[in-house]
Amino acid sequence: MDFAGKDCLITGGLGFIGSNLAHRLVALGASVHIVDSLIPGHGGNYHNLVGIEHKVTVTEADMRDQAMRSLVRHRDVIFNLAGQVSHLDSMSDPETDLQINCRSQMILMELVRHENPGAIVVYTSTRQIYGKPLDLPVSENHPIRPVDVNGVNNVAGEMYHLLYHDVYGIKTVSLRLTNTYGPRMLLTKGSTQGFITTFVRAALEGGEITLYGDGEQRRDMNEVSDVVEALLRAASTPECFGLAFNLGHFEVVTLRQVAETLQTICPRLTLRYIPWPEEKKRIDIGDYYADFSRFSSTTQWLPRVDLTTGLERMVEFYRVNRQHYWGAL
Amino acid sequence: MDFAGKDCLITGGLGFIGSNLAHRLVALGASVHIVDSLIPGHGGNYHNLVGIEHKVTVTEADMRDQAMRSLVRHRDVIFNLAGQVSHLDSMSDPETDLQINCRSQMILMELVRHENPGAIVVYTSTRQIYGKPLDLPVSENHPIRPVDVNGVNNVAGEMYHLLYHDVYGIKTVSLRLTNTYGPRMLLTKGSTQGFITTFVRAALEGGEITLYGDGEQRRDMNEVSDVVEALLRAASTPECFGLAFNLGHFEVVTLRQVAETLQTICPRLTLRYIPWPEEKKRIDIGDYYADFSRFSSTTQWLPRVDLTTGLERMVEFYRVNRQHYWGAL
Repeated sequence: MDFAGKDCLITGGLGFIGSNLAHRLVALGASVHIVDSLIPGHGGNYHNLVGIEHKVTVTEADMRDQAMRSLVRHRDVIFNLAGQVSHLDSMSDPETDLQINCRSQMILMELVRHENPGAIVVYTSTRQIYGKPLDLPVSENHPIRPVDVNGVNNVAGEMYHLLYHDVYGIKTVSLRLTNTYGPRMLLTKGSTQGFITTFVRAALEGGEITLYGDGEQRRDMNEVSDVVEALLRAASTPECFGLAFNLGHFEVVTLRQVAETLQTICPRLTLRYIPWPEEKKRIDIGDYYADFSRFSSTTQWLPRVDLTTGLERMVEFYRVNRQHYWGAL
Repeated sequence: MDFAGKDCLITGGLGFIGSNLAHRLVALGASVHIVDSLIPGHGGNYHNLVGIEHKVTVTEADMRDQAMRSLVRHRDVIFNLAGQVSHLDSMSDPETDLQINCRSQMILMELVRHENPGAIVVYTSTRQIYGKPLDLPVSENHPIRPVDVNGVNNVAGEMYHLLYHDVYGIKTVSLRLTNTYGPRMLLTKGSTQGFITTFVRAALEGGEITLYGDGEQRRDMNEVSDVVEALLRAASTPECFGLAFNLGHFEVVTLRQVAETLQTICPRLTLRYIPWPEEKKRIDIGDYYADFSRFSSTTQWLPRVDLTTGLERMVEFYRVNRQHYWGAL
């Protein structure tokens, strides 16, 4: 799809992935509308729009607000990225997670159905829905077995999207993201938003990374520019509609390797190994890496950014912008 | 498990399956508590308790009511059967379906976790979660692809149960029911609760059964006494906890065969064939029958009631009790 002149809505557009997508869409000449509820600690950040702040419109609203009705009208593409991303929070407050990740998605699909049934809707799901992998790499046919409430609600959110394709013909597609990293992530203290924010923050502070066990859990990681490219291709490829696809990376790395790569970029960083805390162990999924061949063969997408390049780019961004991303958590 | 003296809660216990379970549990000497919200048109019916009305306690409450907190305490087994069962209603009012089938299940599991984490919880899911079968018979590993909002919310409801086993050790099990029929079903006019109620009502009235297309869609059907036995075995078999199982039947029949069997029991019944209405076709799943070998091998459960016996038993029940089951819809 040529995005020049296209009218795009990004839910969660002040957040990490949403704002990177907004920058790319503006560069491509699209008309970009952002809606974000700015839930504290979830990554929404006006600083993410520096450079494009006069080229996008922003509405502060929850997906459940009446404002959404007019926001979904007349859009060519809706990139639906809004969502709670904290797995531990979803266990301590499952009700809020259900409202944001399950109910809000249903409400959005109802709005699209009634107000703009011709729109393309790209939804971002997560690898978390597979739970502990039974075999590797994990394909889209792997059983779904979430290990936290957030995963259950993400499953439902994705299923609403695919259902509205099947029943109402709405052009929906879901991408199941793996660990995504890069500029404009909120660098929270603690680890409620995944290991990468904790690691990078420690690296920038010359602090310490704590690894559980031997740090040998394997992951595939996508730099955010690769994810943005995947979102654009998903919207542009009619063969994708009605389907869910994994993203992933050729490069499978251990958490230890990620930490050591950061150490080469930020030599003051130290690493420490401790036994698994019980409450982390309970919801850990072991090794994970995806089979993303289905998406590659459908859209010719391939990840372009390797881990070293990606981490260098990320550290460089925060060396300049750190004061805007140090989360309060 | 010897149910004599066991303390059991049945959510949705005034409904079709719940009340049949209550009768069985009372006969086994269990202490039976029923909670039901009596949503109009959903099968809750005090007449279902005739014969055991002085041997059970009934609380009229929604799963979201505060009353549930004390109701889940001190129970040995919670049979969690409450839920919206209308597929068409779930499409016209997805919000209500989400509240009843998704959010209420999460709330119940939170209550069990906090108030009674040692309880056994048996949840009833539905074959609808598989969507249009990709291959037959459908095993538990078949991809999940609901064809209506009710199916999506049932998936989430089941996943909350299994998740709370994995994370908190609660003894949950989910049975994915196929078409269930028998005494104490609400016989609604129209077909919002599945074909069997429409068929049996027509048979009793000497009316007409309308079959779509050639009526050759295949189904497996369980008489409710077989389903009740399965619920008891699921609760009694620790190997089941944390897992979801299909129910099903050896006897795979076409809708036409079901109608013709009813015709032999009620000769005034006539059959008519019409082309598929568009709104039904959109959410039809084609043929379905389950592979239930996993549950059989784990619990030694087998369906005992064949279709002819089951339909005869059902018709006989309504010949005596019809005035209590003619739904207003």
